[in-house]
Parts: sequence; C-alpha cells; structure tokens
Amino acid sequence: MITLQSYVHGQWVAGTGAPKTLHDPSTEAVLGQVHPGGIDFAAVLRHAREVGGPALRALGWKRRGERLKALSALLHEHRDALLDIATQNGGNTRGDGKFDLDGASGTLAYYAKLAEALPEGNTLGNTLVDGEGVQLGRTPRYFGQHVFTSRPGVALHINAFNFPAWGMGEKMACALLAGVPVVEKAGTPSALLAFRIAQLVVQSGILPEGSFQFVAGSASGLLDLLGPMDAVAFTGSAATGALIRGNANLVQRNVRVSLEADSINAAVLGPDVEVGSDTFEQFVANVVVDMTQKAGQKCTAVRRILVPAALLADVQEALLERLATIVVGNPAQADVRMGPVASAEQLRDVRAGIDRLAAVAKVLRGGSQPVPGPGYFVQPTLLLANDSHTPVLHELEVFGPCATLLPYDGSAAAAVELCNRGGGSLVASAYSDDRAFVEALVHGIAPWHGRIWLGSEKTMGQAIGPGAVLPGSIHGGPGRAGGGEELGGLRGLALYLQRTAVQGDRAVLGRLFGLDAAPAS
Amino acid sequence: MITLQSYVHGQWVAGTGAPKTLHDPSTEAVLGQVHPGGIDFAAVLRHAREVGGPALRALGWKRRGERLKALSALLHEHRDALLDIATQNGGNTRGDGKFDLDGASGTLAYYAKLAEALPEGNTLGNTLVDGEGVQLGRTPRYFGQHVFTSRPGVALHINAFNFPAWGMGEKMACALLAGVPVVEKAGTPSALLAFRIAQLVVQSGILPEGSFQFVAGSASGLLDLLGPMDAVAFTGSAATGALIRGNANLVQRNVRVSLEADSINAAVLGPDVEVGSDTFEQFVANVVVDMTQKAGQKCTAVRRILVPAALLADVQEALLERLATIVVGNPAQADVRMGPVASAEQLRDVRAGIDRLAAVAKVLRGGSQPVPGPGYFVQPTLLLANDSHTPVLHELEVFGPCATLLPYDGSAAAAVELCNRGGGSLVASAYSDDRAFVEALVHGIAPWHGRIWLGSEKTMGQAIGPGAVLPGSIHGGPGRAGGGEELGGLRGLALYLQRTAVQGDRAVLGRLFGLDAAPAS
Repeated sequence: MITLQSYVHGQWVAGTGAPKTLHDPSTEAVLGQVHPGGIDFAAVLRHAREVGGPALRALGWKRRGERLKALSALLHEHRDALLDIATQNGGNTRGDGKFDLDGASGTLAYYAKLAEALPEGNTLGNTLVDGEGVQLGRTPRYFGQHVFTSRPGVALHINAFNFPAWGMGEKMACALLAGVPVVEKAGTPSALLAFRIAQLVVQSGILPEGSFQFVAGSASGLLDLLGPMDAVAFTGSAATGALIRGNANLVQRNVRVSLEADSINAAVLGPDVEVGSDTFEQFVANVVVDMTQKAGQKCTAVRRILVPAALLADVQEALLERLATIVVGNPAQADVRMGPVASAEQLRDVRAGIDRLAAVAKVLRGGSQPVPGPGYFVQPTLLLANDSHTPVLHELEVFGPCATLLPYDGSAAAAVELCNRGGGSLVASAYSDDRAFVEALVHGIAPWHGRIWLGSEKTMGQAIGPGAVLPGSIHGGPGRAGGGEELGGLRGLALYLQRTAVQGDRAVLGRLFGLDAAPAS
Repeated sequence: MITLQSYVHGQWVAGTGAPKTLHDPSTEAVLGQVHPGGIDFAAVLRHAREVGGPALRALGWKRRGERLKALSALLHEHRDALLDIATQNGGNTRGDGKFDLDGASGTLAYYAKLAEALPEGNTLGNTLVDGEGVQLGRTPRYFGQHVFTSRPGVALHINAFNFPAWGMGEKMACALLAGVPVVEKAGTPSALLAFRIAQLVVQSGILPEGSFQFVAGSASGLLDLLGPMDAVAFTGSAATGALIRGNANLVQRNVRVSLEADSINAAVLGPDVEVGSDTFEQFVANVVVDMTQKAGQKCTAVRRILVPAALLADVQEALLERLATIVVGNPAQADVRMGPVASAEQLRDVRAGIDRLAAVAKVLRGGSQPVPGPGYFVQPTLLLANDSHTPVLHELEVFGPCATLLPYDGSAAAAVELCNRGGGSLVASAYSDDRAFVEALVHGIAPWHGRIWLGSEKTMGQAIGPGAVLPGSIHGGPGRAGGGEELGGLRGLALYLQRTAVQGDRAVLGRLFGLDAAPAS
C-alpha cells in the first residue's frame, strides 16, 4: 500500500490526520492512502507567488509552450505504466484510460502549438494584444489598445475524480501557458494516477520550481487565503461548487472562480432521421459511448435522449441491442468494455439516483440492483420517461452508466423546451439533416449551452463524439453547469490574465505592445 | 415635493413603506420622496422575460441600435431640463451635469453606431460570431465555431448615486443592444434625475414594453429571484458589492454578477517631467479636475498622487495654487466650480474618511471641518502622506474632493509597488516622456488595473483625462475594484450573451452563421 504525498513548497509532504483509503474499484482492494491535513497553505501560496510565478513569467510565451510540449511527451513516454494505474485505481478500460491520458497529453501539445504563434521578448512574453486598437480622441493620436497580461497570482485547480490526468492536464496547460503557477488538488478516489503524474512532473524538472505544486489531501483551507490576483478552477458537484463560489474570502476579495458542475446533457434525434441512415447510426453509437465510456462518469455524457415519438420503438431497440453487447467487469480483463464506477460513494449515489429516476420512468435495462461479487459495478441502465416534462429528469445528474429516453413530438420547439429545462448544460448534441430543424434548434438552445454538437450525414466518420472535450472549443456551460468556461484555444487563458485598456499616444502604445506603425496623424 | 414612482410590469407604481427623502444637497431642501417597498418583483421578472425580452430579440441588432440612437437623441432633446435637475438633486455644476448626461447620450450613440456593423436577419439578429472557426477533425469538414447569442434573461442594474444618467445609460446601452431587457435601480440620493429620464424613456415609446423597467426604491428582494440566464451589474461600495456577490441564490444558481466597487486610483508623475512642461501641465490639470469634478465623486477619480520626492515641492505648489481658484458653493450660481457631495450620509462618510487619512498624512488644504451654512459641502482637500506605504492610504476610498500626495523615489519599481498596493484599481494614470520608465510602469501595473492612461508631451490637448470612462475602452478593475468589466465596445455585451462552441459539418455551420464559403474539403 502506498501513502500518497503532496508536493508543496519544494518538498514531498505526507500530510497528517486520519487517512482516507484508495481502492481498486473492481476488486475493492486497498491500493493506497492519503492523509488529508497538515499542509502549510500559506507557505504553498508564498512559494507559488515568490518562486514559481516569477520563474514562469521570465520564460515568456514561447518557452512556456516548450515546457508544455515536454510535459506532453513525458506523459506519452510513461503511457503504459500510467494506463495500468488508471485501470487499477480508476476502474478504467484501456480505452477509458487512453481517453483520459491522451486527452491530457493532447491538450498540453495543443497549447504548446498555440504558443508558437505568440510574441516573444522581455515584456511582450507576458502580454497579448486584445483586438484592434481604437481612436479615442478627435485625432488618431489619442488611442486605446486592450491587452491581456499575466496575473501575478496562483491558480488553484480542484480536480474531479473522473479524469485524473486530463482534468489536471487541461487546467495546467492554460494556467502555465498564461504564466500563472498552479496548485493541483487531486480528486481523492482516483488520486493515484494524479500522484504518479505529479511525481513524473516534479522528477522531470521540466517546470520551474514553484510553478507546479500538488495537493493529495484536502485543499479547503486554501480558499480562505487566496487574493485578488488568484483564480480557482473547480470541476465537481454543484453542491461543492456553491460552497466555493460562496466562500466568504473569495467573495470579499473578488477572487475569480470558474466552476464546471452538474450537467444533464441532452442528445436530440431529429424527426427527419431514417432508421439505419448514417445520421441514425452516429446517434446510436454516440449515445452508447457516452453511457458506457468511463462507466458514464463524464460531465459531458448524455443523460437525456430526446427522440421523436414516432422513432421511439426503433431507437429503443437499437440502443438495447447495442448495450447488450457491453461486457461489464474488471477492466484488467481484455474483453471487458465497461468497468465499475470510481468508489463506494459513487456506487451509492448512482444507485440512489437510478431509483429516483425509476420512480418517474420505466427501466428498460440495468437498474439499481447490486451486481454480484466485489467491486463498484452498475449495469448500463436505460430508462424511458413516463412524462418527458418531469422535473427530476432535467435536474438530477446520475453520474454513472445511465440515461433516459424522453419522447417528444418531433418539433424543434418541443426539443428546445426540453433541452433548456436542464437549466444550463455543458453540451447538447443533435442529429438531423433537416436544415430548418437544425437552425431552429441551435438558435433556441444556444444561450443555455456551452457547446452544441451537430451530427449529420456528412459528419459520419469525421467527427469525434459530443462527449469529447476538444481544446479548440470552450468547455463549460451556464447555470446548473456552473457558469464557467475553460479551453477554447486562447479563450482558456482568460481566467489567468488581466485585461487592461491602455490609453495614450498612438506611437507610445505602438512601441509598448509591438503594434504596427501608427497611422499618419 | 414629488413622490418618485417605479415603472414596473407596464405601470407606474408609487411603492409602500416609510419614505426616504431626496434633497437639494446645496440647500438641504427636500425635493422628493421614495417609498422603498411594495413592488412585486416576481411580476417584474415575468414581465421582462415574457414581454420585454422576446420583443427586444425580435428587433435584431440593427433595430435595437436604432432604438439606442433614439434614446440618445431623447436625452439630448431634454438636456437643459435634465441639467437643472442634476444641479438641484445632484449638486452638480453645469459642467458636472454635462459630464454625466452627455456621457449617457454619448455612450448610447456609440453603441448605436456599433450596431450598424452587426448582422441582420431573423436569427443572426441575436448572434455574433466569435473569432475564426477551427478545424476539429482530421479533415476540414468537422469544424468548430464559437458564437455569442442573446440570453433570454433579465439585466438587473444597480446604479450608483454619483452618475444617475451615465451609469444607467451605459449599462442600458450594453444590455439592450445585447437583446436583454433591463431593470434599472436608481441610487436613491440622486434618483430624481434617473426618475425623470425613466419618465422620458417610457413616454417616448422608443423601447418595446417590458424591455425597460425602473425601480425607485430598494431592489434587494430581486436578487433572490434571479435565475441562470440573468445578470446583475452593480456599481457602488465594496461592502454592498460583497453582499450581492455572496447572495445565496446568485451563488446557488451561478447567476452572473459584475461589480464595480471601491478603487483608490493612482496618478504617477514620472521622474523625467520638467516643471511647466506640457506633460507636467496635463498632470496638474487632470489631478485638479479629478479632485473637484462632481466634488470628487467619481469612481475613477485619482486618490493617490505619486510624485518623485525631488518634484514634491513644485507639485504641491502647483496643485495648491490651482485648487485655490476653485469656488465652492451652490452650483446654481454661475461662478461656482464645485458643488456639495450628494447627501448627508456622504458628507459624514467623507469627513470621517478625511479624518482617517489625516491621522497618517498632513492636511495641506481643506480638511474635515464643517463648512458654514446649509448644504453638504467639503473643501477640496489635499494631503501629504507621512509615509507613502501606510496601508490606509491604499485601502480607504474617500469618495469626495480629496486626494493624497505620496512621495516616491522616482524609480518605476517603487511606483509599481505603490500603485499595486491599491489591491486592484479601475484606472491608473502616468505622466512621463521617459520610454523606459513608462514601459516598466505599464508592464508592472497592468495586471492590477482595468485601465491605464498615459500622458505625454504629444497628448497635450488631444486626450480626455483619465477620470472619463469612454465606451471604447473597458471600465472595471480586479480585486478591490470589484473584478467586473463593462463597456470596451462589444466586450461590454459579453455579460448579457452566452458563448457557445458549435461543432459540426463546416457547410452546416456556414449556413447557420453566415460564414464565408467553406474551404474545399
């Protein structure tokens, strides 16, 4: 059994307090433990601000990008060993583990690539010009230019248990490229993978000392010490998210907070789609992937499957047929297609959630009953709503291999209304080749969604499914989904940068920010 | 005496509860009263969401812009009468009143102009394309495009007493152009001007019914009813700001909040500046304007005057000489250059604040002593810090005609350190023709400031001073200043729009959002 440590103020620290144990969720075997307390958070922040931040900012954009590239390569180099840990401590199939780990290295590589196009130089290495400058006075001489600069603060990342590699990697990529040192708090149930990655990162020496710190235990005391240049990015439950957003110190000091929380994502099948068509096949395949990949433990996974009533029987048949082929078991076995959920607590929550859904929906397969033997297993569970408008279907995120069919009348208006009942979601997907339907749907649901994924005849074989978060598109959603925004190319750096309007003589601003020569004035 | 009314759910409503009185701050004469309670806020929100929002969005960008243009003209048409009210109920000189009122009509006209370049059409009338789209798959076919769309919510604007016209106008301009109906809560002491403007707006019929509502009393109960598509923009004290940001409902539902709060703005004189030079003259003139315009009641006014120790005597002399010419009195008299502060409460706070500063600084002129006669008058007050590092000088916003000289050693590093002690400010200004000094200062203070204003030889006669908020530059600042962001051209609409990443077939997205023809795939 391993005792996880935190890497803080230049040291590995074992922590104190009654340990929490980490398990293999397939066998319930104890793999490790974490002592949650005993970290000097004031020292953590001082180290980040005084050592890590200045060192990172001294590198400038391009060299920070090079470090991200090296981190990406580091993860790739240790891929097999890390995938084994993902299976052991995360209950991940090989495919699940790759989705997490390659997502991390891919996102780091993506931001490394973005950095190549960013400016160089002593000061411009931490400045990005924001948009075109504008004339502010009667003549072009008096000018305004918006710029983004690196904030001399700390990024506290409170990561979820479901993506120990990607969650940490994508948040790190943005903050580090922005020039802001990170404190990475791992989700405890699956922290072994995050811990191993942290060990690799520290041992590699790729990042300047102080720019990467890792907390294996609790980080809640840290919130009370953050200041106006710091930022918190959290992924997890809405309940914990509200505790963070409402933290008195964060409120008082206007500390930036970005939350990714619950999301009851919808997939919408258009009324025009023919059974067996390429569009239909993508719909079925993507829904099944979302229900079973990572045992449904993706914040982007579909939970509500909106199907025109006329197509319900066909959809039901196709999904049940496909779900029947999913072999559930210990992902250490090669034929297993879906592993357990991450922890005993998750198992309890998922079962209770299925029961709440089953009170207002018919269980078509799976359900909340225990799966024989050890491990935190749940069968892929498909439900059919008695009434598609029942609130709990739109408000309860059951974070496991579970989704509900919601029949609708096939009109775009009805689909829009049902989608938006989710109260703000990370992603909605729609499958249709009917131009008018797609247009009405997209414009109707866009304000309630951070991302919309459109499947059509032409996307067959071209598109990664809606459950995948790509670094070039923002990840986040309004309302229930937390109101945060991550990734989306350079947009993902905004949380760590300050926008400033600089006003003055056009020539002075041109020299300051490397703008093109001033227009004649 | 007039009883102010609220315009809510299509009616003028007098309110209930013990009235608060509005005064002429020059004479203390009672001008009007407000009953703070009795408004059905649920009905207000329903009216905005069900009547105002759909009507606004049906107009599209261009026609919403036309309405803003008409509002701008309306204010201009009634300018003289409104300026009289600004003098009576706001204690404004004619110049102060114009700054407020022309700021409002100018900002409305600015956004009307911006709207002319925005897209037209049924759906694109509420959509803005955000940046270039990107290829997401292996071929260009699978594509991602970010868009902004109007949120089907309500904008609650809690305005400050110091700019009853501009504060309401600039917030309205952004929300209405974004397609979001507004509820405008006026700052009570000066609410007569906001009320008169609200009457004009309603009578004019320029805005669709439900898109403009006006609350003369308290709006605090409204916060508990807002939902995920709504937004709150607040200008006022940090204490009230924290109550809003920490409101349990807003936290729970991830309602967007933008705050403009306390800001202890700095002006920095560079070590290179010669006494009597154009750069020096701009510095002196702008500091005096900020200290006396609106009796110092501007959130952007300079509070800390950083002067190289070697120039202190000259600066002190020049400022005292200029301040001595400021005639303080009832602004209804033509020769008066500075009126009273807005209310008895403000007078009390300003006097108490001056006393707190005077405990750590020498009063060079003015001070907290009462001015004989009626009215809420304070003399222009200039202090000299005993020690420029004393915390209260960087933390206490005295919201009146008061600023403190802070000597520094003339190095950029020292100026940066002092500026940033403000803990986040709306604006800092710097006066220098030394390239290295300006570069070091700007890059050092940018992350702590929402705006930086640079005065130099060439800006003489070209530039509006740093105290003016221009619609083309963002207004807001990190930390103590609230962490909010307003204006800045289209950036100012972001609070009211949802950003969504739309992913799909390049041709489908091209049609949806009117993008240029897809590249060959």
